[in-house]
Amino acid sequence: MPTTHDTDHTYKILELVGSSDKSIEAAIENAVTRASKTIREMKWFEVVQTRGHIEDNKVRHYQVTLRVGFTLE
Amino acid sequence: MPTTHDTDHTYKILELVGSSDKSIEAAIENAVTRASKTIREMKWFEVVQTRGHIEDNKVRHYQVTLRVGFTLE
Amino acid sequence: MPTTHDTDHTYKILELVGSSDKSIEAAIENAVTRASKTIREMKWFEVVQTRGHIEDNKVRHYQVTLRVGFTLE
Amino acid sequence: MPTTHDTDHTYKILELVGSSDKSIEAAIENAVTRASKTIREMKWFEVVQTRGHIEDNKVRHYQVTLRVGFTLE
Amino acid sequence: MPTTHDTDHTYKILELVGSSDKSIEAAIENAVTRASKTIREMKWFEVVQTRGHIEDNKVRHYQVTLRVGFTLE
Amino acid sequence: MPTTHDTDHTYKILELVGSSDKSIEAAIENAVTRASKTIREMKWFEVVQTRGHIEDNKVRHYQVTLRVGFTLE
Amino acid sequence: MPTTHDTDHTYKILELVGSSDKSIEAAIENAVTRASKTIREMKWFEVVQTRGHIEDNKVRHYQVTLRVGFTLE
Amino acid sequence: MPTTHDTDHTYKILELVGSSDKSIEAAIENAVTRASKTIREMKWFEVVQTRGHIEDNKVRHYQVTLRVGFTLE
Amino acid sequence: MPTTHDTDHTYKILELVGSSDKSIEAAIENAVTRASKTIREMKWFEVVQTRGHIEDNKVRHYQVTLRVGFTLE
Amino acid sequence: MPTTHDTDHTYKILELVGSSDKSIEAAIENAVTRASKTIREMKWFEVVQTRGHIEDNKVRHYQVTLRVGFTLE
Amino acid sequence: MPTTHDTDHTYKILELVGSSDKSIEAAIENAVTRASKTIREMKWFEVVQTRGHIEDNKVRHYQVTLRVGFTLE
Amino acid sequence: MPTTHDTDHTYKILELVGSSDKSIEAAIENAVTRASKTIREMKWFEVVQTRGHIEDNKVRHYQVTLRVGFTLE
Repeated sequence: MPTTHDTDHTYKILELVGSSDKSIEAAIENAVTRASKTIREMKWFEVVQTRGHIEDNKVRHYQVTLRVGFTLE
Repeated sequence: MPTTHDTDHTYKILELVGSSDKSIEAAIENAVTRASKTIREMKWFEVVQTRGHIEDNKVRHYQVTLRVGFTLE
Repeated sequence: MPTTHDTDHTYKILELVGSSDKSIEAAIENAVTRASKTIREMKWFEVVQTRGHIEDNKVRHYQVTLRVGFTLE
Repeated sequence: MPTTHDTDHTYKILELVGSSDKSIEAAIENAVTRASKTIREMKWFEVVQTRGHIEDNKVRHYQVTLRVGFTLE
Repeated sequence: MPTTHDTDHTYKILELVGSSDKSIEAAIENAVTRASKTIREMKWFEVVQTRGHIEDNKVRHYQVTLRVGFTLE
Repeated sequence: MPTTHDTDHTYKILELVGSSDKSIEAAIENAVTRASKTIREMKWFEVVQTRGHIEDNKVRHYQVTLRVGFTLE
Repeated sequence: MPTTHDTDHTYKILELVGSSDKSIEAAIENAVTRASKTIREMKWFEVVQTRGHIEDNKVRHYQVTLRVGFTLE
Repeated sequence: MPTTHDTDHTYKILELVGSSDKSIEAAIENAVTRASKTIREMKWFEVVQTRGHIEDNKVRHYQVTLRVGFTLE
Repeated sequence: MPTTHDTDHTYKILELVGSSDKSIEAAIENAVTRASKTIREMKWFEVVQTRGHIEDNKVRHYQVTLRVGFTLE
Repeated sequence: MPTTHDTDHTYKILELVGSSDKSIEAAIENAVTRASKTIREMKWFEVVQTRGHIEDNKVRHYQVTLRVGFTLE
Repeated sequence: MPTTHDTDHTYKILELVGSSDKSIEAAIENAVTRASKTIREMKWFEVVQTRGHIEDNKVRHYQVTLRVGFTLE
Repeated sequence: MPTTHDTDHTYKILELVGSSDKSIEAAIENAVTRASKTIREMKWFEVVQTRGHIEDNKVRHYQVTLRVGFTLE
């Protein structure tokens, strides 16, 4: 929850859902990687919810909802 | 709250407020219809808040805040 | 969640529970109609909770808790 | 939120998701009807979340998560 | 959380803080007794918060915030 | 909120409402006693909500909603 | 969140929305001043929500929702 | 948070606590595996809380509380 | 929390973080001013969180997270 | 929730879990008594969570999590 | 909500209540100043609650509850 | 959420933020390890928030806020 030193920026917050069949961390990284195609200057994220899909009694993938902050240049 | 089978997508979540003088369902549908002018591939919504306006002691319209998820293609 | 243009008023918020055997909207309207006997100038409402009663495996009525704002004239 | 007069019962609370392509109320009723196949003596419900599915820019169905209370006889 | 059978009433909800140096239950009862001087037909309550005051390293009194529902006759 | 030492178990959580005309603690105990007829190996509980019924300006009974955890043997 | 020393009182809590074009503090004070026309013995307040209205890309006024406690004499 | 395409089902939600000394993901999978002995057709899960036990200044195991949805066939 | 009279609009909600070394109000205004470069027709805001940065035992700046509603024309 | 008259103090808030096999109130008092060995000038508390342990189908003890405020002298 | 660049630190979070008869900002600053007598290296704060005391129908002082993060050196 | 068998202890809860560039679990373990320099007898933790820092479109580190309970000996 610490605040950044970049006090002059205004941040915009975007909400994303990423998924992975490996881990919660990979789902977060997939969302960030995908978002980077259109958004520059992402600075931080916050996990809002962790969910997933079950198939044949196994976790098939994790789905993580993120709030991602990026600077308005 | 079920999760979709489309595990390869990253979703982006948008927050909208729709309104209707008829019903809560119509307010939801109005928001989705209006958003479809600029957003493709909306997949699901979640009601965040239901509010409304009162005039002459009658409900004049319903206002429903939605989180809408759509795939980043 | 939009704010009104009537910026000079102070609002008082009242909490009510209305009920109906027809729909959530009718329960809201019943609460507003009943409250209008003693309160003038109701401007908006917000749904706090939606509940109901089940009898013989059917929904017998809906009960909706509202916060209702009215101007202190 | 009112409490019942049946003070001698212990209630058990079950969480269900019902769906309907018509309305929020129909989704609630579908969940209650389906649950009545195995649960007797359902007394009340509380809406936890209202969500839905969008297809071709239209709401295809509503999904309502309910907490349902029934007496342990 | 069960709902009452009195489906025709509209309820108004009042928020009160009662206190007692004996117990949480006594603080609830004191609030109800005091409110009964001006409010008839109280039907149910819900505990919102339980707090208290400490003096000389002892709990001097409990303060319980209640939402109380009563029928609008 | 401490965690148990029994790390090998999977817990299932059940939600119950117990009632008593005496105290909050008695309502909790009544729920646990009643549930013990069908559930073995209950290990812990957590109070979700404390409510009650008022009659003739007196608290007639307390209703406590509990989450109860028990081991899946 | 500290508790008062006035342990004998029962408090009633009122919810108000005050507004000001100057500051959050002025919106709080306007609500308290307006409420003092009909309520004596207000003791404390708690900010529930801070909102506002934007016009021509400027904050036109702040709207602060307060819970205000006063003693039932 | 996406919704499934299986719109005809009613879901029941079960709450479980799984544990693992390895990772949060393993605790989730252990809960799902254990539950599969008695529940068929689990479709999705949602993480409610992540906790754990500390021994000798090390994390001894993770405990993850899940809400698991399965279809009522 | 009052609702606007402009019932025909659909609102989109944007989440922003503004900062200021002077006051909470200035942080709000900085966010609104910065956002106005790309967004027209902002109508209202709601404070989600108030945070800040401390340096040499002094508050160096305030950071306010806002939800801002604007009409989809 | 009332505020104290001691406006010049800065309070520090400590979070504690107390337990008792008798009652919720005794668990609160045990936490306060134990904390008084190292903390002076405790002024108020707030209940965050009420939990407990079940053994042989009986409540073995109550565990109450408190936030306790004390003045920084 | 942005995160700092100082990724190697572990933060400890302290909860404080500061007060001021002038403004919310001054209450925050008073808490930080007072805490600096015993805590070094405070980095950020987050407002948890804003409250206050009313006397003679005027706001006598503001009380702001803060979570303050500081590095464990 | 299970409770421990150690019913005679009073727990104190500390809030910490740990970080790691590897995983959420490693961030938790780093916080516990660092805290163990000054705190003995830590018994359990609960994840309050999971956040992180993004640099060059990659997750640079995870930051996990924990509540950690330890016995007051």
